[in-house]
Amino acid sequence: MCELLGMSANVPTDICFSFAGFLHRGGGTGPHRDGWGIAFYEAGGYRDFRDPHPSVESPIARLIRDYPIKSHIVISHIRQANVGQISLANTHPFTRELWGRQWCYAHNGQLADWQGLPLSFYRPVGGTDSEHAFCYLLGELRRRFPEPPADPEPMWRALHELCEQLRGLGVFNLLLADGHYLYAYCSTKLAHITRRAPFGEATLSDAELCVDFVEHTTPDDVVSVLATEPLTHNEAWVRMAPGELLVWRDGEIQARLKSDGVS
Amino acid sequence: MCELLGMSANVPTDICFSFAGFLHRGGGTGPHRDGWGIAFYEAGGYRDFRDPHPSVESPIARLIRDYPIKSHIVISHIRQANVGQISLANTHPFTRELWGRQWCYAHNGQLADWQGLPLSFYRPVGGTDSEHAFCYLLGELRRRFPEPPADPEPMWRALHELCEQLRGLGVFNLLLADGHYLYAYCSTKLAHITRRAPFGEATLSDAELCVDFVEHTTPDDVVSVLATEPLTHNEAWVRMAPGELLVWRDGEIQARLKSDGVS
Repeated sequence: MCELLGMSANVPTDICFSFAGFLHRGGGTGPHRDGWGIAFYEAGGYRDFRDPHPSVESPIARLIRDYPIKSHIVISHIRQANVGQISLANTHPFTRELWGRQWCYAHNGQLADWQGLPLSFYRPVGGTDSEHAFCYLLGELRRRFPEPPADPEPMWRALHELCEQLRGLGVFNLLLADGHYLYAYCSTKLAHITRRAPFGEATLSDAELCVDFVEHTTPDDVVSVLATEPLTHNEAWVRMAPGELLVWRDGEIQARLKSDGVS
Repeated sequence: MCELLGMSANVPTDICFSFAGFLHRGGGTGPHRDGWGIAFYEAGGYRDFRDPHPSVESPIARLIRDYPIKSHIVISHIRQANVGQISLANTHPFTRELWGRQWCYAHNGQLADWQGLPLSFYRPVGGTDSEHAFCYLLGELRRRFPEPPADPEPMWRALHELCEQLRGLGVFNLLLADGHYLYAYCSTKLAHITRRAPFGEATLSDAELCVDFVEHTTPDDVVSVLATEPLTHNEAWVRMAPGELLVWRDGEIQARLKSDGVS
């Protein structure tokens, strides 16, 4: 299994604090030694950093931890390989362009019978179930919505339906973003916390680091962080329900789509 | 105008030496202060690093200069903005997936009437003539070759024809790669050098750095470097002819397509 980390904020915010804890799970406090990646949306642009080596030993990861990149959406992933060898091509997050937007995708879980998911516009570069499912999912969205929909809600319902279908094949915890929204779908494990004024202190569970957010924020900042497991031990994280899709924008939940029932 | 840097090698090779000289042109010895990027193909995988800040001041550029990433194809670009504001979305190289391969593209030059180039599968994220031309070019290749061709030569001819068309709109020096081949098309300025045994010494033109390649290579290594302007002043670089497309693989020229005549 792998671990996911996401952020949605209403002002460009760096993720150095959360990433410092998260990267310790990549071969330090956690078993996820098989690569890691992090993607940033910044002022209409997109970039990611990926490395097939353990994050705890990676000079690129140290750069990201120490060099504050201000972003309003972040997706990160550390990998413990199950399907697909350890390689750069199999390292999350994966990216494809749709409607002139870079879509970024990271998956935690494992799928059965994924080879049967039909591909159309997008094809995998590597050999993982995760990337295959991404190509299927984004191709389906593109087929149903050749143009960006003026009203996004039908697209969110289609995305939820596709996530539910993929959950039917196994474990499918997902972080997905298009630069406007951050989508989080929970199959088994995903938690979130929203930090806003009055800001307090937080202490990482995985590294000896404490931050006083008052020093780093203005009273209007809203910053939400999502992770497979809570990253701090003195804050009240909310665990998502299986089958739930949360649509985040500017640090707030814009929409919540729930499973129809039986899971 | 911008500057291009490319590498094709028969063994995974780091580009630290050439990049050390090249990055000085990004706000140091050159005027290209408007962002830079570098892309690496490594064992079937792809990653790029892009920064909208001057390369000579960028901590990410320093990381790339000091952290040897071994690759068999590299494309790098430093930007002096003409069309499109300075932003991450407008920072080369650009990437799109075709046939399950990540295609990487960097352009030096400026095009007129580029807005009229019809788009199909791929759409630009930013606002540059360069990215628009890439989306057009790759979309056209995809339309003509929906599947990867068993014989690549007709595809190379189609690529050359598209490059010639784009050169008709202005200046179009190009580096393009798909992980197998590195394509270099010259509109006005592009030079290359191939280093192989017996290896000698090279001295950078833009920084006080000298390297003895014998120390860093084996006798079978073949490493070719391409750049807008020669990077060293004690080696014999070959300047490409306008309208020429070179197809590189493993450090060697696989094919050379020339202009039909009038340019």
